[in-house]
Parts: sequence; C-alpha cells; structure tokens
Amino acid sequence: MKKVVISTGGGDAPGLNAVIYAVVHACYRRGWEVYGSRSGYGGFLDIDEMVRLTLRDVEGIYAIGGTILGSTNKGNPFAKPVENLAGEVQVVDISEKIMRNYRRLGFDCHIVIGGDGSLEIAHRFSQLGMNVIGVPKTIDNDLMITDRTFGFDTAVSTATNALDKLHSTAKSHDRVMVVEVMGRDSGWIALYSGISGGADVILIPEIPFDLDIVCQKIADNELRDKQYAIVVVAEGAAAKGGQVISKGRGEMGREEVVLGGVGEWVATEIRERIEKDTRSLVLGHLQRGGSPTTFDRLLSLRFGTAAVRLVEEGTYGHMVALSSSRMISVPLSDAIKGRKKVDLASDKILTARDIGICFGD
Amino acid sequence: MKKVVISTGGGDAPGLNAVIYAVVHACYRRGWEVYGSRSGYGGFLDIDEMVRLTLRDVEGIYAIGGTILGSTNKGNPFAKPVENLAGEVQVVDISEKIMRNYRRLGFDCHIVIGGDGSLEIAHRFSQLGMNVIGVPKTIDNDLMITDRTFGFDTAVSTATNALDKLHSTAKSHDRVMVVEVMGRDSGWIALYSGISGGADVILIPEIPFDLDIVCQKIADNELRDKQYAIVVVAEGAAAKGGQVISKGRGEMGREEVVLGGVGEWVATEIRERIEKDTRSLVLGHLQRGGSPTTFDRLLSLRFGTAAVRLVEEGTYGHMVALSSSRMISVPLSDAIKGRKKVDLASDKILTARDIGICFGD
Amino acid sequence: MKKVVISTGGGDAPGLNAVIYAVVHACYRRGWEVYGSRSGYGGFLDIDEMVRLTLRDVEGIYAIGGTILGSTNKGNPFAKPVENLAGEVQVVDISEKIMRNYRRLGFDCHIVIGGDGSLEIAHRFSQLGMNVIGVPKTIDNDLMITDRTFGFDTAVSTATNALDKLHSTAKSHDRVMVVEVMGRDSGWIALYSGISGGADVILIPEIPFDLDIVCQKIADNELRDKQYAIVVVAEGAAAKGGQVISKGRGEMGREEVVLGGVGEWVATEIRERIEKDTRSLVLGHLQRGGSPTTFDRLLSLRFGTAAVRLVEEGTYGHMVALSSSRMISVPLSDAIKGRKKVDLASDKILTARDIGICFGD
Amino acid sequence: MKKVVISTGGGDAPGLNAVIYAVVHACYRRGWEVYGSRSGYGGFLDIDEMVRLTLRDVEGIYAIGGTILGSTNKGNPFAKPVENLAGEVQVVDISEKIMRNYRRLGFDCHIVIGGDGSLEIAHRFSQLGMNVIGVPKTIDNDLMITDRTFGFDTAVSTATNALDKLHSTAKSHDRVMVVEVMGRDSGWIALYSGISGGADVILIPEIPFDLDIVCQKIADNELRDKQYAIVVVAEGAAAKGGQVISKGRGEMGREEVVLGGVGEWVATEIRERIEKDTRSLVLGHLQRGGSPTTFDRLLSLRFGTAAVRLVEEGTYGHMVALSSSRMISVPLSDAIKGRKKVDLASDKILTARDIGICFGD
Repeated sequence: MKKVVISTGGGDAPGLNAVIYAVVHACYRRGWEVYGSRSGYGGFLDIDEMVRLTLRDVEGIYAIGGTILGSTNKGNPFAKPVENLAGEVQVVDISEKIMRNYRRLGFDCHIVIGGDGSLEIAHRFSQLGMNVIGVPKTIDNDLMITDRTFGFDTAVSTATNALDKLHSTAKSHDRVMVVEVMGRDSGWIALYSGISGGADVILIPEIPFDLDIVCQKIADNELRDKQYAIVVVAEGAAAKGGQVISKGRGEMGREEVVLGGVGEWVATEIRERIEKDTRSLVLGHLQRGGSPTTFDRLLSLRFGTAAVRLVEEGTYGHMVALSSSRMISVPLSDAIKGRKKVDLASDKILTARDIGICFGD
Repeated sequence: MKKVVISTGGGDAPGLNAVIYAVVHACYRRGWEVYGSRSGYGGFLDIDEMVRLTLRDVEGIYAIGGTILGSTNKGNPFAKPVENLAGEVQVVDISEKIMRNYRRLGFDCHIVIGGDGSLEIAHRFSQLGMNVIGVPKTIDNDLMITDRTFGFDTAVSTATNALDKLHSTAKSHDRVMVVEVMGRDSGWIALYSGISGGADVILIPEIPFDLDIVCQKIADNELRDKQYAIVVVAEGAAAKGGQVISKGRGEMGREEVVLGGVGEWVATEIRERIEKDTRSLVLGHLQRGGSPTTFDRLLSLRFGTAAVRLVEEGTYGHMVALSSSRMISVPLSDAIKGRKKVDLASDKILTARDIGICFGD
Repeated sequence: MKKVVISTGGGDAPGLNAVIYAVVHACYRRGWEVYGSRSGYGGFLDIDEMVRLTLRDVEGIYAIGGTILGSTNKGNPFAKPVENLAGEVQVVDISEKIMRNYRRLGFDCHIVIGGDGSLEIAHRFSQLGMNVIGVPKTIDNDLMITDRTFGFDTAVSTATNALDKLHSTAKSHDRVMVVEVMGRDSGWIALYSGISGGADVILIPEIPFDLDIVCQKIADNELRDKQYAIVVVAEGAAAKGGQVISKGRGEMGREEVVLGGVGEWVATEIRERIEKDTRSLVLGHLQRGGSPTTFDRLLSLRFGTAAVRLVEEGTYGHMVALSSSRMISVPLSDAIKGRKKVDLASDKILTARDIGICFGD
Repeated sequence: MKKVVISTGGGDAPGLNAVIYAVVHACYRRGWEVYGSRSGYGGFLDIDEMVRLTLRDVEGIYAIGGTILGSTNKGNPFAKPVENLAGEVQVVDISEKIMRNYRRLGFDCHIVIGGDGSLEIAHRFSQLGMNVIGVPKTIDNDLMITDRTFGFDTAVSTATNALDKLHSTAKSHDRVMVVEVMGRDSGWIALYSGISGGADVILIPEIPFDLDIVCQKIADNELRDKQYAIVVVAEGAAAKGGQVISKGRGEMGREEVVLGGVGEWVATEIRERIEKDTRSLVLGHLQRGGSPTTFDRLLSLRFGTAAVRLVEEGTYGHMVALSSSRMISVPLSDAIKGRKKVDLASDKILTARDIGICFGD
C-alpha cells in the first residue's frame, strides 16, 4: 500500500482534471491511498487543504476544464513573499516546513502536474528528499522533452474555431481580421491554428516579420479577387529590426496591459498602410478553458496512469513524457532545459508556405 | 412570373445566407426569377454585380455564416461620398441611377435584408416607387417591431460558450473575468448570455451601474467560499453619474479604439479596488460569425419565405416580423421607430436577480 | 420562511438541472429552505433520499444535462407494483404514506418538474392537500398549454447537427440518408430539425405519408443533378392507409425493439423502390443528453424562478408556462389536456414547402 | 510546368477536402495545372467529369467534410460489372481505356486519396505506367504504414461527444447505454473514444469478450453506488468461443441489416442477464461526417503538400505517411500490407485498465 499526493501548479490547461482522474483511478486499482494538495503546496502548509480523493470525487472530471485542486499561482515556496505584522514584505523559504509535513503525513510520493516553473520547484524538493514524479503541462506545447503537452490541442481547437467564425465576416465584409493567440516564446498555437483555420498570414516569435511583406501579401490577395485576409499573431511575435512590441508583464504572470498587444499594433499598421478595414481580437483566456478535446483527454489520462506506474516502479525524480507516441520517463533534471521552438525546417512550415501562408519574411 | 432581386446590407449576422436560401427556393417554387445584388446596391450600379441566383448557387448556405452577396457597408446611396479626379470628396445622391436601373432591369420587387440603416434607405426607395420588402436584421435584437431578429441566438450562444470556457479558469485560479459583449444601445446579448452562462454581474446600458456595488457583490462571493466571479458587460454599459466609458467610433462603423472599452475599464477598477486577479476579454466579431444556431436558421428561413409570400400578395413597402411566434408584416414606415430596450420589469430581469445576479444597481 | 421540496420525474431532458439551480437560488434569496427528493417521490418514502440542497450543491449545474436528483422512472405512487415475499407482484397505493411524510417533514410546497404523467400524479396529490407547483418538461414540445418546453431546443440542435454531419457523406457518396428522430405523437423535432438541417423529406405523425411520393421527390432531385437526399422521420410517423409501422413498447417505457423502427422501414422501401444506396440512423437518446442550449438554459431558469414566485404568492395547484414570451401560470387541472400537434396551417409548414421539402402527401 | 490530376476513392472521411485544398494550393504555388477526376476514375472515362481546379474552387473547403470530387464507390476498373443491352451483367477490365486517356490528357502524375482498396488499384495502374502518388485514407486508423490517417480524430471526437451526451441520461436514469462505433477489423475508434468518453466497458475485435465478465463489471459498479454504465462496442467485436455476431453485408458496401448488430445483441444480453434498463445506439455514418477537427485538418494539409513534393521529386509509386510526427514516403507496394490492430501491450490499453475500464476478458 502506498500513499500518494497530487498537486497542480501554474496556469490553467484543459486536461488537468483528466490527469487527476487517471491518478486517482490508477491508485485505487492498486489499493493505494491518494490525496490532493489544494492550491499547489497548500495542503503541506494547512492540513485543511490536504484532501482525500475518492473515485466519487473525480467522477466525470476527465471531461471538465480547470482543476478541482484549485488556484495554483501561489508563488515559489523557496522564495515566498510574506507580509509581517508591520506590513513589510519579506521573502522567506518555507520549503523546510513543506518537507517536514510531507514526511509527517507519510507520503510515498508527490505527483506534481506543472509547467517549467512548477517542475523546477519539484526538482528542488526532489533534491531535498521528496519522492517526486512530474507531469508536464503547458498549453503552449513548448517543453523540450515531450512531443506534446496536454491542453495544446484544445487551445488550438479553440483558436481554429474562432478563425472559422471570423472567416465569414471577413469575407462578407472585405475585412482584415487580426487574431492574437497565446505563445510568448514560441509560435505553436499560432502555427497550428493558422494552418487549420485558413490564415493568410501567421506571425510567430521564431520568424521576425516585415510588415511591408505582410501588407504586400494582403494586397496581393486582391489580385485574385480575394478582398479579405486573416492574420494570426502569436503574442510574442516581433517585427524585424527592433520594432519590438510586447505586453508588459510583471512577476509571476501578473499581467499589466500596456496599450494593447502586438495584434492591435499589427492591425493598426495594416489599416494605415493599405487602407483596409482591419479589426483585431485577442483570444486570451478562452484558450485555457473548456472541455478538453478527445486528443487531450487521452493524453492526460495516459500521463496520469504513466505517473502512477512510475510510482509503482519507484522511478522517482522523473517526469513522464510522450516520445513518438510512446510514454517514456526522463529525469526531472533534464526535463526543463529550454523551450521548444517551432522548427523552421519542419514540414509544417513547408505545408504552410505551400498553401500560400505568409510568415512576413 | 415575377422577377425579384435580393440584397443584404449592414453588419454581418448569422442567418443572412439562410434568408437568401429561402428567398431563392420560394421564388423557384413559384417559377420566378431571382437575382442577387452584390454589395448592397452594387448590382444596380454595375451590372456585373447583379447575379442570377439558382438553386445550385444556394446549396447548403443555410448553415453558413456571412452572406454570399458580399460586403455591404458601402454607404448611403442618397448621400454617397465620391472622390473626384482632383482627389476631393463630394457627397452625391445616386438614388436616381439606382431607380433607373431597377426599372430597366424589370424587377417586380427588391427584398432588402438589413438593419435600421438599410431599412430606412429601403423605405426611401419605396417612396420613389421601388417595390420593397424588408427583412429585419440585427444581432443586437433591438428592433422595435419584431420579437426576435436572426443572428441574436447565435451571438448569445457564442457568448455563453465563451463564459462556459472562462468559468473553469476563473474557478481554478480564483479570478475575476470581465467579458465585454456587443450591445451599444441595449443589453440583450449581455442579459441572455449572462443568465445562461452563470454570470455573477451583468452590466447593461439600461441600468447605470455603481462600481462599489459590483465590487461588494464580488467580495460577498467569498463569504460563501466562492473565490471567483464572472462579469458580463455590454459595450454600451455606463457607470452612474457620468463616468461614461466608451470606445470612440467614427462614421459608418469604422472603429477607432480609444484606450480599451468599458470591459477593460471595469476590470482595471475591480483589480484596484478589491485586489482580485482580474482579466478582461472582448468577444468582438466572434459574435457575428459562425454557423447559425438551429433557432436562427429556422427564423431566417421563415423570414425569407414570408418575404416571398408578401411579394406574391403585392404587399410592398412592408417588412416581415415575428410576433408571438407568428409571421406578420408591418409597414416599413413603422418598422424602424427607435430601439427596443431591455424591459426592466420583465421576468428575465427577475430571474437574473433571483439566481443571484447583480446589475450594479 | 418557507420549506420547499423539489423533484424531477419522467424521461431525461436537458434543462432539468437548470430548473433545480434556479429554484434553489430563488429560495435562498428569500431565506427559505429547499430540499430535493431523489428518484421522484423517493425522498417521501425513504428519508435518506430527501436531501438538503445548498448553493454549493447546485454550482454550475445549469450547464449540465441530466438531473442531480437521479433516476425518475419509478412508477405511479397511486398504483405501484410491489413484490411480496412470495414473489408475487401486487399493485398498491402508496400515496397516503407520501402525504403523511410530506406533512411530517413540514413542507410548504412541492415543486414537481415533469411531463404529463408526472404532472397528472402531482395534480392528484394536489387534490389530497399537497401544495404543488408544476414545471412542464418534455423534449417533444407537445404540451398544450405552454408555447415551449425546455429540452426541445437542445434536442432539435442535436438532430440538426447530426443532419449537418450526414450531409457531407450523403452528397459525396450519392446516398439517401434516413434519420429517425423522437416524436411518437407529434412531429415537432422532425419538423424543426428537418427545416434547419436541409432535409428533402420530413415525415411526421400529423401527415400520413405516401412512399411513392417520397420516392418521386428523391428521384426528382436527380433532375437538377442532386444525387442525394436527406429524409427525417419522426418515430411516430406512419404511412397512409394503414401501413402502420411502429416500435413495440411495453409498460413503463421499457422498450422492446421489434424489427427496427419506421426509419429503417422507410430506408428499406426507398432502397428497393428506386435502387438508391440508402442508409438509416436512429438518433435515439442522443437527443435527451448534453449541455442545454442557451435557449433552454434561459427557459429553464425562468421556469424555476417563476415557480418560486408562485410559491411566494401561494398560487398552489398551478403550473408555470410560457405564453407569447411571458411567464404565466395555469391550473394543473388545465395543464395536461391532450397533446399539442404540429399546426398544419402554420407558417413553418409553409416555409418547409416553400424551400422544397416534401411531407410525403 | 507539370499537370497533375487528383481523385478520391472509397468511403467518406473528414479531411478529404483538406487534402484536395492542399494539393491545389501547392500546385498553384509551383505554377502547375491541377485537375480533379470526379467519382474516382470518372474523369478518365468521361471528359466532362475531369474538371480544372482553381484556388477559387477550393476556397474554404479545408473546413468542410465530404469531397468536392463526388461519389467514389464506383468499383474496380480492373473488374467492373457492366450491364449489356440484354440486361446481363458482365465483368470487364476498363483499365486500358483509363491508361489511354491518362496519357492523352498529358498528365504527369495522378494523386490518389484512398483506403487500401483504392491504393491497391492505384498500385496496379502504377505498374501499367501511370505516375501515381498515394495519400492514405481511412477513419478506422488501421493502415499499417502510417501512424495516423486523417478522419480518425474527427470520428473519435464525434463518438466521444456522443458518449458525453449519453452520460447524463445514463446517470440520471440508472441505465446501461451500449454504443456501437465503427471498426470492423480493429478497435481504434472504440478504444480512443471509450477512454476519452468515460466508458465502463470497451469491446474490440482484438479482445474476444465474455459477457459474464461484462455483466459482472456493470453489477460491480453498484457496489460503489454507481447505478449506470456506458459500454462501447466496435462493430467487429465478437464474444469468445464463437458467439459471432455481425451485420451481414453484401458486395460493394451495400448493407443488409441482419437483426441488428453486435451493439444491440450486447444490450439485449445485458438486459436479460442482470435486469438493468439497457439501451443501444449505433453511431453509424455520423462518424464519417462533419467538419474535420484541427488535428485532422493539419494532418490532411500536410499529406496533401507532401504528395506534391513527391511529385516535384518524381518519387512516383509511393504513398505519403506519418511516422513519428514526420512526413515520410513508402513504396505503394509496401503500403497496404495487412491491417494495423490495436497493440494489446500498448500503454493505451494499460491506461484503460488503470482507469477501471473492462475489456470483457
């Protein structure tokens, strides 16, 4: 009999609940106990936040967005800002308290579902003696080790669906529609949704763009009597030669919107340069929500059960990953080495160019 | 045998194509000829823009957003800005040319699908001798005479679907999500989607709001351990006592975004006043696109065939309308008398309040 | 302070949970207590099945199909089959026990959500002294008094969506697709989904059909180079002159499938008579499930709060209903007088014929 | 300048149009001419069925199910049944005529999108001297060489969505729902949709099932107070020891339904053996229709452009395929060697078992 605890960290991604569902079921099947720590490490700090998870608790949640374990952006336990009575904020290390309670509660393993930040913290706890198994999570699909992360297919589907909706209006009204999608460091969502959603232009961080080329492409559309265009912009896309446009953001993902993002800027420039009626739209958090697609449900459930099989083997300090459609495990220390960029030589880029999509280069 | 021409005017609304489908089929069934004028009155100005419509041309279009008759915001023929060779813009009246071509082409009737602007223009042509039948269109549902306009149910469904998606993230991350929906003069989309999508707060033009009350409502959520909130804001909503917030817009719907809209303003205020992690999202043109819902398809098809029955009777100068689930006709002169506001005494408002929704009043 | 109990009876309909949500919220807003009786009258027979409902219990359920109050086809309390120790089944009247417990538990009112069967039973309890408010439910939309019942719009949307999917295959493969939808006594779902989903033929109980006319219609399609056809059949449709085709069904909704239904029969006949590749599909319970559409959510929430307002007024023995887009109440005794048939003179039938749909007559 | 012809063969699969879209765009980009042969080889037999494809012809079709090249089950040109004037049917070989016209029309290459049957025929034409490139198609995902075929993700999504809908009714009404999905030789759709849709039991051709074990699983559900169950059955699943149940089918896909399929049989057995209210549903052609998912759109577009790149290289007689997320090409002779069965040792089967799914073994 083992006693396992699971937690979720970082931003929302469709499929978090499906991973929890799989972990709970796989533990029950082995006769193990499984607990959930609310709000990341909350259950290690306040026993009321450490909840026993039963099959009934997870009934049907594989199909539901969000996480039943609640809010997760609670900061780094190794450097947590705490306010003292005098109202001053001090950064303290509460990792020792977490380790103490981890041991007191007698857990055999802590399954951490999180992005690079959460997994790095998990790795540090692993070094302190916690038995950790990681499950990779980011809707941006930009983790190095795993071929895919859950939530990505759902985010792409939401973005593609939005492009489908915008097409009819763009076409009926001879308009340029600029849609900003997620992707601060990589253009995965923009690339996949742009190809699938019939974009004319896709702007991604990996390819600095030239607005003159973008405008030329849109103007060329008219030569074959296509009076409209769809432009998909990753939030991290930037123009060549320093016209860097980006939303200012503070620490820990707290967003401070500065005069619109790159999508709005691109729309304004197109409107001015070629006098087309141009509108922009930011999809934002729509991409993080909703019921996971079939693809993401299956991937999440596979990740969850694979994590439990690692617990069974005692392969701690590892993360589950997808490699060529098989489940593998890699050391946590290897897991988070840089972001996976869109490979400009991949056939997806070739496909995009072949169906007439312009990258502004 | 009659010869009918159909045109679409104004902004996009899901169901335009379904009206066209119904008109074409109903004309064919009577052995009539039917034409489509592209780009509003474009076909009356350039014969290449006047196209014969066959059953094959409209195959399957009842399920598709947009309009096969193309871009429609081409201005008022009674006061059209035209650029002369010297580059000066003059306002000219081209209505006479349109009437002349209408007569030359031998049409018996012109079916105009449009909002209040297009229908007012149609009424003027009616007074000049054109046989006009109107079909009301606005996704805002704010026309006085008809109980419903097509496109509204689809817009509400899109907005509700977005709220469903945002719920999981809001809940998982203890966030306030502010969603700005369409409705410059009336709060129909905000009200319907807010009730159906589980909003905590709905702000509409008909009820000036007090941000303190809004913030209090969100803070009260925490009393029953609900750490998140969904706020739906119609773009025309305004705070009490003059804190008027609105996007600046120029002539003819050309949008000039001025520092974000009311949704972003509300989000900023909530963030500052009660220190909740608050995000805002503008649904924008997503609401105008996509395949029409079953409700909108049926309504559009009924409008289209009802219009043809009016042509058959020779009841020109009228508009079709829905009244207590029956198709009726009303004189065009009566059709566009003011906007239909949300009735504050209706049971929908009572329902909203009964399920705990706050209007900021 | 009032003490209210709510129950759900009969077949599933999207929106049941939304009614419950609205009742619970509206009661809380008034400071009342609200209970749910599981499995219809189960809570009046077994106290464990009578559950207190809190706001937390109903969180988010307005968007979810089914009913949190569980299985409902438990038979008529006035004539309930009970098995004795000898294994013999006797029909007993347990209404007195229910009345006794209703009084002991001190309820002020029982809100019953149900179809004609459940509402008739509710009416009998009303005559025995129970304070009853009815909420009408049937996805078939065939109740006399109310303009609409919840669940219908969702069922029609599911059927229309299925027709959309079948269209592409039918067209690509020159096939006739026959789709059997719900509607044993009336053709509402078939009519609405057939019009919205581009059917060529709609067969409903209100119009006995002639298969020769149906086949002629499909053959005529080929004259205008349309090699495929979509046929929508209500399960209660029947051929003229006695070729009655129906699924045999036993007591209490227990289905005994007898050699397929009318859809399969129609498909077989078409295949044989005009040698077209013809397939049939029964949508069945897909029509009863899923998240309610925006339309159904709003209607359900309005019904729920309207019911609580009737409790507030003490208007017992009544049912809420929708009449010309307003909430009204009618005596339960009037509520269930016969089924609402499709009005053959309505403009919906005219619309269907005008867009070329054949009813086989 | 090259001259390419494209054709589609066999059953419908979402994504066919997206492949055509990609081929046409990729050819235009190279300045090539591209034609479509309607109805499989129809364009080689009747010049009216050979159509020039322009960018305008394929506008927006990447998002639409079916194939614009029309009906495809027209039989094997090497052994085509032809009726003579006496009404006798003879089998003739028309391949020579096709080769002659292929050469006369001056095509450089014929891109064939099809399943194993179509690709085998294409291979024979390849041996006769036709330059052929194959694109693999089957919604069953059971081709050996390629990791995935397009249409599969859409079919699985449709099935999963149906399971989601049935869940609420099953749960609310304590029912067993048996859903029959496609898969005559392999259980891919059943496995993927069953895992993603929360099935209790999945029955696939690869695992002969024992109905006693299935019934035991459903009965065991009640031990943990789960009164309902979802059973997914692939149409080719069979009970152990010879209780072979299958739909009889005649030549050329013409279906002759014999007393229902395996789904209905399983439902009947469950109803009788454990006296649960059990219903069955056959999803049928719903799985072949509809707009392709984002995943399938991307895969189809990649296949289409990869095929054109093979034409560019002159790598004729090959088929494009997906291998570990890369596009590869394989000789047509290798392409169709047996069906890909579900690997019983794969982690997907482990995942299914770990989340409590029973395979009846």
